[in-house]
Amino acid sequence: MLGNFLDTITIPSPVVNPNIIRENVMRMKKKCESFNANFRPHFKTHQCAYVGTVVRECGITQIAVSSVSMAFYFAKNGWKDITLAIPFNIRELKPLVELAGKIDVLNIMIDHEQAAQYVAENVQGVKLGVFFKIDTGYKRCGVQPQEYETVDKLLSIIGQNNNLTFKGFLTHCGHTYQKTTCEERQEILEGAREAMIALRVRYITKFPKIIISVGDTPGISAAKNLEGIDEIRPGNYVFFDVMQARMNNCEAKNISITVACPIISLHPERNQVVVYGGGTHLSKEYLVSEQGQKICGWVVKYNKDGTWTHLPNALVTTLSQEHGIITFENAADLNQYKIGDVIGMLPVHSCMTSCVSKFMYSTDGTKHGTLLGETEDYPSF
Amino acid sequence: MLGNFLDTITIPSPVVNPNIIRENVMRMKKKCESFNANFRPHFKTHQCAYVGTVVRECGITQIAVSSVSMAFYFAKNGWKDITLAIPFNIRELKPLVELAGKIDVLNIMIDHEQAAQYVAENVQGVKLGVFFKIDTGYKRCGVQPQEYETVDKLLSIIGQNNNLTFKGFLTHCGHTYQKTTCEERQEILEGAREAMIALRVRYITKFPKIIISVGDTPGISAAKNLEGIDEIRPGNYVFFDVMQARMNNCEAKNISITVACPIISLHPERNQVVVYGGGTHLSKEYLVSEQGQKICGWVVKYNKDGTWTHLPNALVTTLSQEHGIITFENAADLNQYKIGDVIGMLPVHSCMTSCVSKFMYSTDGTKHGTLLGETEDYPSF
Repeated sequence: MLGNFLDTITIPSPVVNPNIIRENVMRMKKKCESFNANFRPHFKTHQCAYVGTVVRECGITQIAVSSVSMAFYFAKNGWKDITLAIPFNIRELKPLVELAGKIDVLNIMIDHEQAAQYVAENVQGVKLGVFFKIDTGYKRCGVQPQEYETVDKLLSIIGQNNNLTFKGFLTHCGHTYQKTTCEERQEILEGAREAMIALRVRYITKFPKIIISVGDTPGISAAKNLEGIDEIRPGNYVFFDVMQARMNNCEAKNISITVACPIISLHPERNQVVVYGGGTHLSKEYLVSEQGQKICGWVVKYNKDGTWTHLPNALVTTLSQEHGIITFENAADLNQYKIGDVIGMLPVHSCMTSCVSKFMYSTDGTKHGTLLGETEDYPSF
Repeated sequence: MLGNFLDTITIPSPVVNPNIIRENVMRMKKKCESFNANFRPHFKTHQCAYVGTVVRECGITQIAVSSVSMAFYFAKNGWKDITLAIPFNIRELKPLVELAGKIDVLNIMIDHEQAAQYVAENVQGVKLGVFFKIDTGYKRCGVQPQEYETVDKLLSIIGQNNNLTFKGFLTHCGHTYQKTTCEERQEILEGAREAMIALRVRYITKFPKIIISVGDTPGISAAKNLEGIDEIRPGNYVFFDVMQARMNNCEAKNISITVACPIISLHPERNQVVVYGGGTHLSKEYLVSEQGQKICGWVVKYNKDGTWTHLPNALVTTLSQEHGIITFENAADLNQYKIGDVIGMLPVHSCMTSCVSKFMYSTDGTKHGTLLGETEDYPSF
């Protein structure tokens, strides 16, 4: 038996280790400080007020989020300086304006003149910072770095409303996730750094306080040179996950989130245990190994103090809606497990696991709420 | 503009069409009736009390679910005959017993003697039906069809407790999802049918009321012969989705769920619009086309009455956490869209979309709750 709070859980339950979270935050913070870059972590990875508090205790005061709902949630939990790092959804102007009136700094992001026009025409009574999204190669959102005409047009539109302040340029190199080597990811980040610095050089005379903001955990982890970047916005680094470990951005021991799952069936004839814990609880993201093996998670054994130990001889090989299958290397590895025991999974993609989690335990057994557990679209405060 | 409730939505919102749901239920119900099979739909696909009510209005009174939480949720919404179609998690015995005391019929499923032993030793004061899970080839859970010794042992264990009634054998042919042709899926279901009938033949003298219960939408949709099967438990058929349509189990017009997403950016230079609506709202499941194109969803245009029309010239090609990218065949197709418009996605896997949805609209604009929107692990009633 475990001899801790895990004895009392009945359903699949995320467990986070605040000590590992702190180490992850401090490592990233030091990297930023060494390049004089401001560290504005992206909170979409955890969406949990408790994790936010652990991050705040590391000296962080500014955050990025990816929805107005998430901005409300963290504002309710004491965050006063928030960047909404997704092209602004004009249908949410009303809650956005309400929120802007309640916190110190609220920045939005825009990459199209229709959105700029709508904001310029409709924001009244509150101040908003505005970033322009730049596409440095991910091809999701953003203006191309050399599309100066578009940038000038956006500047001219938001310049019509004194409540809007142009803050600078923001980019997210999400295509680092598609690259297998550290060198390729360094190259992407270096390309983005140069493109963003070129933009700053062009506009700094008119906007002396201009900020260039760069995101993504794989790129920042790989980067040797962040010189000239004003702000860094990684999110995943706080938890890490199997995907990041397989990219060599972390080791298994740096992953700070697990999902504790009750064992519901044993199949020693094929070296497998079946757990209650599936795509509903972890999301269905998976990786494929060099040998063509599906990897839906890594496996941990919980210790008596609520922490865990990675089991390198086991893999989560299937996740269906509510079931997970853990495959061990040898049938003998299964001997220690029986039905009703709890075993843990390290998620493939921790951001997506947080998206489906209504609560998280910390290793001391305290249960914490998340954005998903809120009952209102825009949590009131 | 739409001229309906979709004008007022601000965030990605599932919309379901009760008329299509009814058609899907009635089609499946007729197929069951033609083979004298009882229809016990699996409610894990929608997890929504409203959808349940539409199904009930089609004359359905018995359901399957895949968690104790889900059983509580639907019991709270008036369902009195529920099969928990996942190997029973012994850590949930206490809520299970509580629930059994509140409804007419509660069946659990078991595939291992440790679980049987635990249930036999600990169930008091309430009646429970017990199914044995049979593995007819999916290799997730279940006893092999010819493992008579295990079946006999399980029977002997649960026979020790008068509160437990052996109900029969249950199988789920989830491996039909991995087959590309209708013939292969027919073959799987036919194999399962024969294996299950053989089990019934063996045990019917001792248990004259024995039930053999078979699940899965692809298998049942493909099946030409359900003769001798007592009970059918498909779930997905109620919504269908892109995966089922690509398997030829339905057409686009039979898919009864969409996710309405606000457009947040336009990129005519690459025939794309970007929406607020990502893996957080649809799950990240995807398919790959014959041409190697990633399919994260199909695309619909909403009509003024809240219904929709499939747009065959567009595809959801990327879903990240909060963003979706819709790619049109031609730049000209984008001309009718502007930032702030709402466009709809047909999900790749509707079960997983329901898992991440806290509410659903029906086409008349009414907002309905779901299990995920409940605040308790076991919704009280």
